[in-house]
Amino acid sequence: MGAFDLVIRNARCATAADVFEADIGIRDGVIAALGRGLAPGREEIDAAGRWVLPGGIDGHCHLDQPTSDGSRMADDFLTGTRSAACGGTTTVLPFACQIKGQSLRAAVDDYHRRAEGKASIDYAFHLIVTDPTSQVLGEELPALIREGYTSFKIYMTYDDLKLADREIIDVLAVAREHGAMVMVHAENADCIAWLTERLLAQGHTAPRYHAQARPMLVEREATHRAIAYAELVDVPILIVHVSGRETVEQLRWAHGHGLRIYAETCPQYLFLTAEDLGIDDDDRHGAKCICSPPPRDRANQQVVWDGLESGVFQIFSSDHAPFTFAGPQGKFAAGEKASFERIPNGIPGLETRLALLFSHGVETGRITLQQFVALTATNVARMYGLYPRKGSIAVGADADLAIWETGLSRTIRNADLHHGVDYTPYEGIPVTAWPALTLSRGEVVWRDGQYLGTPGRGEFLRCVLPEPARPKSRPENDTSWRS
Amino acid sequence: MGAFDLVIRNARCATAADVFEADIGIRDGVIAALGRGLAPGREEIDAAGRWVLPGGIDGHCHLDQPTSDGSRMADDFLTGTRSAACGGTTTVLPFACQIKGQSLRAAVDDYHRRAEGKASIDYAFHLIVTDPTSQVLGEELPALIREGYTSFKIYMTYDDLKLADREIIDVLAVAREHGAMVMVHAENADCIAWLTERLLAQGHTAPRYHAQARPMLVEREATHRAIAYAELVDVPILIVHVSGRETVEQLRWAHGHGLRIYAETCPQYLFLTAEDLGIDDDDRHGAKCICSPPPRDRANQQVVWDGLESGVFQIFSSDHAPFTFAGPQGKFAAGEKASFERIPNGIPGLETRLALLFSHGVETGRITLQQFVALTATNVARMYGLYPRKGSIAVGADADLAIWETGLSRTIRNADLHHGVDYTPYEGIPVTAWPALTLSRGEVVWRDGQYLGTPGRGEFLRCVLPEPARPKSRPENDTSWRS
Amino acid sequence: MGAFDLVIRNARCATAADVFEADIGIRDGVIAALGRGLAPGREEIDAAGRWVLPGGIDGHCHLDQPTSDGSRMADDFLTGTRSAACGGTTTVLPFACQIKGQSLRAAVDDYHRRAEGKASIDYAFHLIVTDPTSQVLGEELPALIREGYTSFKIYMTYDDLKLADREIIDVLAVAREHGAMVMVHAENADCIAWLTERLLAQGHTAPRYHAQARPMLVEREATHRAIAYAELVDVPILIVHVSGRETVEQLRWAHGHGLRIYAETCPQYLFLTAEDLGIDDDDRHGAKCICSPPPRDRANQQVVWDGLESGVFQIFSSDHAPFTFAGPQGKFAAGEKASFERIPNGIPGLETRLALLFSHGVETGRITLQQFVALTATNVARMYGLYPRKGSIAVGADADLAIWETGLSRTIRNADLHHGVDYTPYEGIPVTAWPALTLSRGEVVWRDGQYLGTPGRGEFLRCVLPEPARPKSRPENDTSWRS
Amino acid sequence: MGAFDLVIRNARCATAADVFEADIGIRDGVIAALGRGLAPGREEIDAAGRWVLPGGIDGHCHLDQPTSDGSRMADDFLTGTRSAACGGTTTVLPFACQIKGQSLRAAVDDYHRRAEGKASIDYAFHLIVTDPTSQVLGEELPALIREGYTSFKIYMTYDDLKLADREIIDVLAVAREHGAMVMVHAENADCIAWLTERLLAQGHTAPRYHAQARPMLVEREATHRAIAYAELVDVPILIVHVSGRETVEQLRWAHGHGLRIYAETCPQYLFLTAEDLGIDDDDRHGAKCICSPPPRDRANQQVVWDGLESGVFQIFSSDHAPFTFAGPQGKFAAGEKASFERIPNGIPGLETRLALLFSHGVETGRITLQQFVALTATNVARMYGLYPRKGSIAVGADADLAIWETGLSRTIRNADLHHGVDYTPYEGIPVTAWPALTLSRGEVVWRDGQYLGTPGRGEFLRCVLPEPARPKSRPENDTSWRS
Repeated sequence: MGAFDLVIRNARCATAADVFEADIGIRDGVIAALGRGLAPGREEIDAAGRWVLPGGIDGHCHLDQPTSDGSRMADDFLTGTRSAACGGTTTVLPFACQIKGQSLRAAVDDYHRRAEGKASIDYAFHLIVTDPTSQVLGEELPALIREGYTSFKIYMTYDDLKLADREIIDVLAVAREHGAMVMVHAENADCIAWLTERLLAQGHTAPRYHAQARPMLVEREATHRAIAYAELVDVPILIVHVSGRETVEQLRWAHGHGLRIYAETCPQYLFLTAEDLGIDDDDRHGAKCICSPPPRDRANQQVVWDGLESGVFQIFSSDHAPFTFAGPQGKFAAGEKASFERIPNGIPGLETRLALLFSHGVETGRITLQQFVALTATNVARMYGLYPRKGSIAVGADADLAIWETGLSRTIRNADLHHGVDYTPYEGIPVTAWPALTLSRGEVVWRDGQYLGTPGRGEFLRCVLPEPARPKSRPENDTSWRS
Repeated sequence: MGAFDLVIRNARCATAADVFEADIGIRDGVIAALGRGLAPGREEIDAAGRWVLPGGIDGHCHLDQPTSDGSRMADDFLTGTRSAACGGTTTVLPFACQIKGQSLRAAVDDYHRRAEGKASIDYAFHLIVTDPTSQVLGEELPALIREGYTSFKIYMTYDDLKLADREIIDVLAVAREHGAMVMVHAENADCIAWLTERLLAQGHTAPRYHAQARPMLVEREATHRAIAYAELVDVPILIVHVSGRETVEQLRWAHGHGLRIYAETCPQYLFLTAEDLGIDDDDRHGAKCICSPPPRDRANQQVVWDGLESGVFQIFSSDHAPFTFAGPQGKFAAGEKASFERIPNGIPGLETRLALLFSHGVETGRITLQQFVALTATNVARMYGLYPRKGSIAVGADADLAIWETGLSRTIRNADLHHGVDYTPYEGIPVTAWPALTLSRGEVVWRDGQYLGTPGRGEFLRCVLPEPARPKSRPENDTSWRS
Repeated sequence: MGAFDLVIRNARCATAADVFEADIGIRDGVIAALGRGLAPGREEIDAAGRWVLPGGIDGHCHLDQPTSDGSRMADDFLTGTRSAACGGTTTVLPFACQIKGQSLRAAVDDYHRRAEGKASIDYAFHLIVTDPTSQVLGEELPALIREGYTSFKIYMTYDDLKLADREIIDVLAVAREHGAMVMVHAENADCIAWLTERLLAQGHTAPRYHAQARPMLVEREATHRAIAYAELVDVPILIVHVSGRETVEQLRWAHGHGLRIYAETCPQYLFLTAEDLGIDDDDRHGAKCICSPPPRDRANQQVVWDGLESGVFQIFSSDHAPFTFAGPQGKFAAGEKASFERIPNGIPGLETRLALLFSHGVETGRITLQQFVALTATNVARMYGLYPRKGSIAVGADADLAIWETGLSRTIRNADLHHGVDYTPYEGIPVTAWPALTLSRGEVVWRDGQYLGTPGRGEFLRCVLPEPARPKSRPENDTSWRS
Repeated sequence: MGAFDLVIRNARCATAADVFEADIGIRDGVIAALGRGLAPGREEIDAAGRWVLPGGIDGHCHLDQPTSDGSRMADDFLTGTRSAACGGTTTVLPFACQIKGQSLRAAVDDYHRRAEGKASIDYAFHLIVTDPTSQVLGEELPALIREGYTSFKIYMTYDDLKLADREIIDVLAVAREHGAMVMVHAENADCIAWLTERLLAQGHTAPRYHAQARPMLVEREATHRAIAYAELVDVPILIVHVSGRETVEQLRWAHGHGLRIYAETCPQYLFLTAEDLGIDDDDRHGAKCICSPPPRDRANQQVVWDGLESGVFQIFSSDHAPFTFAGPQGKFAAGEKASFERIPNGIPGLETRLALLFSHGVETGRITLQQFVALTATNVARMYGLYPRKGSIAVGADADLAIWETGLSRTIRNADLHHGVDYTPYEGIPVTAWPALTLSRGEVVWRDGQYLGTPGRGEFLRCVLPEPARPKSRPENDTSWRS
């Protein structure tokens, strides 16, 4: 056993299960040993008194994704991965999005070009399947799964993205047969359209009507439907960005019936409410918080916290979807010249995700440190096929680490962030912890307020899912004849 | 006050609320008085010791309805109303079905022609809306509602009938604005199609696979979706032919959230199981029991009984959909030459509905006599705008009555029935009660085994709904801005 | 058929099922005929344009009941039945309460003496069983049931009233064997005691702490327990005075599992909230609203309204428990000199029950007129063995009727009431309807603001329950070996 | 850093979160390092190709516990810990049981004497509180908690053990104030007594009636009640030995309402059914499977499996309660001479727990290896205050390890086991995995079928719980005035 490239001394480590104090010996970017009194490394970092956690994995973020109106997102792989690293995140999973009519392969190839030479941390791709032709279902998806693209996102709303119900079932069947994880954006498109038409007909165009066009039932119904399709096809799925009580009740119902329905939530459902979209029609700053599903109210925030604590959610992501507020293509201009439904939909959050949850979740005692690690790293790696290379502090894993500084009294300020967006929806929210140092495969990419990453050093990660265990068919819905 | 045309003496009457003993004085086809020792009538019937109940109203039956393949149903208004009368039913509500592309008005006009000169008991029409064009939504439906067609049925499955989700919402909105009741056939078309394709691909063509192509989740999902749309639009709906537990749970969920979701069930969900569709692939007689949703199992039968008792269901109908078993267009031939999904879908039940529920519900103590009356007559009249003319024994109501003979030990035999179908799915089931005498507007149409009705004496009934009370919007899904 | 003693002309009648217009012919205190154009009566009342409803039956009221501290209630049978009649109620069911150590028979005999010569409307007795000795269980209860005392109330709280759990089970077993209905006051005594001790230890003595000593979980837990015992013994029970969501959820759960659990609610859970018990410690008027369970909040009121509409509740009673506010034994004095738990517990409501529900339930469209009749009269009569003599407008039933005046704009004022209490908790609440005339067995006891009853004319009613149908044992809890 | 005492090479390690391959370096009984290519140890074990897992912690077992009838259990600390070690378990938590009238301190002192010189693996004590006098509540418990006895078990049934409801609340309040975990045996004593009396009165004495005397509702009700008390006091609790659906539904309800209710299940609820208690009255071997709650049926087994998978359960224990079948004090004799309720209650399972769950849970894909570790070791350590010394494979933790052999085709035979009982209820059940080697603090105590432990080497462990996070009060049940 050769010498270590780097030893982090006296680290108070946490994994998704354990906390322990150890030196971390790193060689070739990999954790080679954990122990007390490890031999010296070529470099050393003293972490005494500090938590050393697995670097965050953001399982849901949009970077330089082609948009339907041809505009560019405010973050590409350069600014996006920079921002991530500065917030303690060491792996991102953005989306290679198929444009309807396009082949998935073309979307993937294009997306590799967008990442190339820019990413400073490692990344994998989810696929967004918008046009599941027989070619896509029968050839492209199976091939892409084999090549390391093992998770697809599908949409139940948005005209340019949404699948018909039969298409959803067909995609789930491919996921079952070839072993992939399907992420579902669950909102009912027809309800939204009907409500939006009525709102606009009444002249209700301000940002705050975005929330009224997407009430909780819109999300609940789509979630129930997606769960039914997963049950039909007998395959696990993952409901992304769950916003509150009615959806959580659907998830609990599924769990109580033995179905494997996983779920994600995001900072916006813990820290924002519908009031942040504006409390009157003149409040155009509300556009900054337009995302879908919209934030709800305090009671729903509590339900989401309860769900994080009690295991309803496996994953806590940012759903980073970066659009500027100012500028000709920005949210303000869009809101000024049109109505709420034309405002670019999505909010930034890559850099603030971990600090918000650590400060308001771990340090308040709502969740344990282990749950934090599971939600922000380990479960993400497992669910999307990056484990055991990513997502934990363990011998053999990549040395993707964040060394945390706690006891801070900071507030979130966009001026301090490193993304390409001109605002953060979390402006002014206090945090008590922030990563002092981020390591990606043993290299320091963020230290004491300095970004030290190099564009292009980030590697593309091929995902590999274990053979999925099968949920049990329930007697009421026996489909045993199929197997 | 003139003399009575007819007095029924010593009647043990039951309404949906009460039981009492009285003479029933009838004049001009209407109940003119209830009392002890009423003055003599021109005719008298002694009902001493017998239950006299409101004549049944069958809120869900198909008679001479145009079919997509051009075949004729086995019952028209002549045989259908005859069969109904012989089973104690005095009003039927069959469906004027819009063929896609056709105007609703044309469907209604055609259906009047089919009824004319044939019906021997009174009838009203539900509309089946299959093509809700703006003309239909904006003009035809409002006009037809005003003219007395106040209930529509919509389908979530069947290619020739089903509405797109947005169309469902639009129809509900018309119902809300103009005051109509929407009946929903809730099964998920895409799930059925997907399962059917898989079954057929595996060579599973026998009748029994009909049940496997429509498992409980198919019905549960569609019910949840329909409830969500009713909640969105803020209008009551009625889920027809509920078959078992998972749907009942959705209904209870809705009630627990303050939503007005009504529901119907049918004899097939109390007396048949999926095994009646055949226990092996050679069992072609199972075609006799093919209907949708399919019968489930004994545990689900119990759930339906519980729902009848505890008020989940308002209406107990036959869903009479008459197709012969024999003959070139019959179920057997269809099953022989094709697969389960080509077999005419539906079963007869107009004549046996009341006796089955009375014998196995009332006489076993599962439900009270008053619940029987409510489920088979009063609630049907109320829900569909026939009340107070129809549905009860009360001063001023039509003298539509059934005098019951109890203590029988008969079995149901198709040979004893009066419909146009060559079998009954209930063959061999014992009954302990049957109407000895049926009166329609004071005229005897069935007595001691003799059908005494006259084709054409039945009148068309215009339905009038009271102004519907509004379900309360729930805070989670506030749509108060709409009003 | 002789002449009528009284004919009420042109009555717009409502039963629990029907509405119809008819003349009501009354002979010997009984409804002899309903019809259009009935022969003249010796007396006539023209009810044209007015609703004529069954007189109310108050299934839960306390009159002249011995109290543990020897004080007298503010209403005896004289003032109690007077007050009832003036509010449209024609039958009361107060409680013959066994004092621990006393025989039930003695309690019944004593209570007859208290009623004698005082009641101006008819009455039956519930029994309160506080000391179920083997003598009580084995002899007194079976004998009393046979004599017409077919309902018992049992308490799960109050030191002087409550039964041990095993005693509850034993009483239920007697009810099952001999056919009686058990009413359960469901609150957990130990939780209340523990909370009360803590509150008092912190100096929290004001009336408003009464609500904090009895939070919703106290009622929910006891309800769950009572349901479990009913399931164990396989007998229906009735949960009295249900106050809100958590208990309603338990009831719905039971219904969904096929159990026959009936329930009652009361005006205080629709019209009062915990804030009426005082919003600060100086607010001693809150004592006027101290009752158990305590009123909750607006959200719980809505749940109770939903339950009335959707059939969770069968009975709407007053739980009239009359104590004065002023005076040496009054609520104010008790609150001044002691703490909340020493304040006489209960509120008056006999006279205002019907008008409150009619005005805020029927006239707002929340419930139908038929539901009003069912909740306030028919179901009460049925559940407690007074049907068909009481509870409806039907041939052969007692002519206990209320003729309603609607379109009023009154407010409830204690000065207008006829009970013996010096306040009403509903002071100032608007009502739009009030009985203009109350008839008891065909005699007018209240007309146009004049009480016309005669003490002593009220008759004691022996209750007779039909053979109770048995709830189905569930497989999980099979007790079939018992039968 | 000195040399390792022992290095386990090429271990495929699993923790509750991770799987990784590493050498494990052990020094002074503690894991000193994990790494690839660790320096040589004084001893070496090659684990290539084998899973190395944390040694099991059995959180619920009864050893040499004083019984109410003075008989001895079939296992003391000698045979009990031997049996545990041979099955891969390295820590046991038996119960120091207070006899009513005795001080808790005396019980603890006595129990130490029973352990002394006998235990070959480490152990901690739970306390069974049966007599919570003010002395016990106010002095003994707080002192014992400080000394390392941080978990109490309380009983809701058994005459010699059960607490009154108020006592339960008082014990929970002490747990909240001083930081302890309360384990609840949740069965309703009165229901059991009532059913038992009825069964015996009918001559039903055979073992199988044990299950009929304790149907699911008995457990469900007590669980609901315990949850309510935990909610009242605002403290987490742990429901032990959950047997099936109805209790699981109560747990899910609690989780959905934000309450911290933990739960344990045991092998008997996965591998036995009520039929194992005998299928007819002559089947006296059923006594071998008498335990409480009793095993249920296959559907309930599935619910328990689902609960293990979806996180309802935190802990999987044996509830080892060893009584012989043969012999004068054995189960057979007891059953012969008396009735089911006199048969010693409890079954052995210490040695078979891990192999059963590994074989039928992990190797079938029902649960992951990480879940296995969490359920059998890590969570137990955490919940009961043994973490981080016990329960994981981490630097600094005790080297309590099991090296597993998989791919076996064995069946469980009592002849192969090392406990003091003359039967195992799992006789004949196949297992595919068994620990080949067990290490306790780095010492081999079981290897290749040889028990190598030394009586007395086991150490007593003082438990330390972290400051418990508080469950959130729910608005319905606000008790915020307390803090």
